[in-house]
Amino acid sequence: MPSRSDRMELHGLRLPELKEGDDLPRAILSTVESTGIGIRDGDVLVVASKVISKVKGYLARISEVEPSLRSKILAKVAGRPAWLVELIRRVGRIVLILPFSEASRGTGFPEEFSRDPNLARAMVEEEGGTILADVGGVVITDAGIDWSNCPEGVVALPPPDPDAEAREIADRIRELTGARVGVVISDTDFAPFRMGSVDWAIGVSGIDPVRRSFGDLDLYGKPKFGGVDLVADELAAAAALLMGQSSEGIPVVLVRGAPVTLRDDARYSMVTAPVSNMGRAFFKGLLKTALAKILRLG
Amino acid sequence: MPSRSDRMELHGLRLPELKEGDDLPRAILSTVESTGIGIRDGDVLVVASKVISKVKGYLARISEVEPSLRSKILAKVAGRPAWLVELIRRVGRIVLILPFSEASRGTGFPEEFSRDPNLARAMVEEEGGTILADVGGVVITDAGIDWSNCPEGVVALPPPDPDAEAREIADRIRELTGARVGVVISDTDFAPFRMGSVDWAIGVSGIDPVRRSFGDLDLYGKPKFGGVDLVADELAAAAALLMGQSSEGIPVVLVRGAPVTLRDDARYSMVTAPVSNMGRAFFKGLLKTALAKILRLG
Repeated sequence: MPSRSDRMELHGLRLPELKEGDDLPRAILSTVESTGIGIRDGDVLVVASKVISKVKGYLARISEVEPSLRSKILAKVAGRPAWLVELIRRVGRIVLILPFSEASRGTGFPEEFSRDPNLARAMVEEEGGTILADVGGVVITDAGIDWSNCPEGVVALPPPDPDAEAREIADRIRELTGARVGVVISDTDFAPFRMGSVDWAIGVSGIDPVRRSFGDLDLYGKPKFGGVDLVADELAAAAALLMGQSSEGIPVVLVRGAPVTLRDDARYSMVTAPVSNMGRAFFKGLLKTALAKILRLG
Repeated sequence: MPSRSDRMELHGLRLPELKEGDDLPRAILSTVESTGIGIRDGDVLVVASKVISKVKGYLARISEVEPSLRSKILAKVAGRPAWLVELIRRVGRIVLILPFSEASRGTGFPEEFSRDPNLARAMVEEEGGTILADVGGVVITDAGIDWSNCPEGVVALPPPDPDAEAREIADRIRELTGARVGVVISDTDFAPFRMGSVDWAIGVSGIDPVRRSFGDLDLYGKPKFGGVDLVADELAAAAALLMGQSSEGIPVVLVRGAPVTLRDDARYSMVTAPVSNMGRAFFKGLLKTALAKILRLG
């Protein structure tokens, strides 16, 4: 039989609909108890950012957002609603403005991925663009502001400190059960060069978000270039398979048997890349690429 | 108890080391039989691209690669070895040249992710950069050419048609067992704005690579902006958690209970974004972003 590390189980937890002030760790525990899964040392809970925003009241009412003049101008440049730009500027720092509706025309996105292609196209045209923003070191589309599964006129804001939210859940589970679990806070975002999204980690507690095996020896005894697997992100992506099944009916997934390294001082910022550094490298890369194209080398 | 779609199991398959000409589907079946897991309709096999290259002989001997003059010039521009640039230009089309070693200086990558920080830094400095290339519609670092877990002087090339490889495995498994399985061919690649990598799908057979629920109604009856989950990529990321455990000792992961849609005409190109289209939008986005920064709106 395979050893423990060869097998991994994911359990989607169907929680009751939660509202501001509800005790999320207790709701998680009552579901794992009622389904007989239980909770053990080394289990990892992947928690959708959205459910944190709900129970903690990280929400905004669109009608109460007063956009500044700068936000109004930027909204014109970016082709987005002024209230959204105002909220993005409050929670994050803008990295890149992408003219999404234009980019997607003729690609089949979103038409081929919808039951109602005309509605889908109209929705994308209305959105106009998207804004990548740096929220506490994590770059995220529209700064993680999201209105799906929110009442009309209400939007969910990202948790201001996702690592702290993860830690709070892990600590409370330990207090209530004695189990030492890892927690990953996840959010949905784009995937490069693909038409669609996957879930990414934005906060972590109790487990190292990354595997630290750069330069370890490979099968032939050579040091490996790579081996820095984004474990927390892979857990978030895996959990998304079950979360996506119903409209937010599964906001938490319990992962058992994941090969994680327990770590008390874990923070997701251990794996985020400094944006300014990446930006400079990226510009140099664009110049090199342009040169290669001009010289007809590519 | 949770319904079937709430639970998912992953089994890492420790195959014997395979070489050119070996029958991969038979090796997979013999492992699933010996471990008692068996194989069933709706199971998904995630197969590392590297093991396909090995059994199919998609390999190159560095000493036998004769770089052209153009490859030599481009190698200087990109800071990469000429033999590698020659191979990249043979299998793909260059999208972006990234000065990786420079970008990573002072970020903690790869030093913090290695047992031997000095060796890790030296390895990155020697590499110099990385080249994103379009291989049959999928954009992939260094065109998927990789020398980890290869004998000295030998590199693995990406399968020329990953969808066809996936189909071949699915067909052969069906022929041998009658089970209708999905197959995802996966490869490791960078994750945006993070210091590390996850596994991505590059080929697929038998399952829709994406969930088509853009515009479906959310909890509050509003059409959802999103819902286009990259299912094949999420499966690849999930499987990577087990594959990463040992140096290529687990090149295949069986996923049971994944909420996939069976589909006979599946191709991974259903979800790849046209690079030229994205490139144009991206340039416009850079201009808009620069304008926003100049106007001090960001």
